[in-house]
Amino acid sequence: MKPIEEYVRSIPDFPESGIIFRDVTSVLQDADGLMLAIDLMQEKLKDVEFDVVVGPESRGFIFGVPIAYNLHKPFIPIRKKGKLPCETVSIKYELEYGIAELEMHRDAIKPGQKVVIIDDLIATGGTNEAMIKLVEGLGGEVVKTVFLMELEGLKGRDKLKGYDVESVIAYPGK
Amino acid sequence: MKPIEEYVRSIPDFPESGIIFRDVTSVLQDADGLMLAIDLMQEKLKDVEFDVVVGPESRGFIFGVPIAYNLHKPFIPIRKKGKLPCETVSIKYELEYGIAELEMHRDAIKPGQKVVIIDDLIATGGTNEAMIKLVEGLGGEVVKTVFLMELEGLKGRDKLKGYDVESVIAYPGK
Repeated sequence: MKPIEEYVRSIPDFPESGIIFRDVTSVLQDADGLMLAIDLMQEKLKDVEFDVVVGPESRGFIFGVPIAYNLHKPFIPIRKKGKLPCETVSIKYELEYGIAELEMHRDAIKPGQKVVIIDDLIATGGTNEAMIKLVEGLGGEVVKTVFLMELEGLKGRDKLKGYDVESVIAYPGK
Repeated sequence: MKPIEEYVRSIPDFPESGIIFRDVTSVLQDADGLMLAIDLMQEKLKDVEFDVVVGPESRGFIFGVPIAYNLHKPFIPIRKKGKLPCETVSIKYELEYGIAELEMHRDAIKPGQKVVIIDDLIATGGTNEAMIKLVEGLGGEVVKTVFLMELEGLKGRDKLKGYDVESVIAYPGK
């Protein structure tokens, strides 16, 4: 099996000039790559006690659900506004261009539950910071966040000081 | 463990009056429900020879990826327009209100590959019919489609005649 880095296709100037897009579909498109990515993310949780996996629409679902399945935990989706049918809590946060809003079901996390947040990528950390606030607003405790990829040049960790943040592949740039 | 049906929360009049929304988040929110849903969908594939799992954004990711992981297959995402970074094939199809467009990477399926399509729900069958056309357009053969839930009253199967369609939970109504 190749190292995990070699399954990631890098696409210059997508979605805009100067950005190197790290494409996770090329990892998933290979049975070995898919297995390796999930196993390596799960490995980061091997000494972590927790109750619930949380992941955001839609690439957080890709890695969060298999890990929840393998470790026999519940999976709580965080979705874009208007997609969840029951009572929700929501948070707005700033993107580079405009405002995004995320929602979670109000009954999804019980006070005191230990939560792991899973996503494909940490970039500026804005989405992750918003997810932590949603979880904490319901009384959950974020014990770890695990990403497949990290763009270190965007300094997402600076927004998540005091939290346990791990990534499988760290790219020095943006 | 309860029967799978009992993990599904039903919400009357969402997203509009007269519709009973079958909420998959209540299944995922319970570690037993999540495991059971994936195991029962996977059970439908036990005698099926295939090469690739295909699933649509975003709830198809929830069930498609763990099944691909468990059976050591690749997972190919179908996404809404503009999300995939490489060369894509796309298809437009009619929804009740308006037009939707789905895309898949052109290199994701090789001619002759046997494909299983996974999604949470079959309703009118429009999305599934579009996905089958995308796969077949690249030379893939759809050997089976598996859904967690089916709304029989919407007659999705009528659109998928000649294909092997299975669901875990069949609701007689809409």
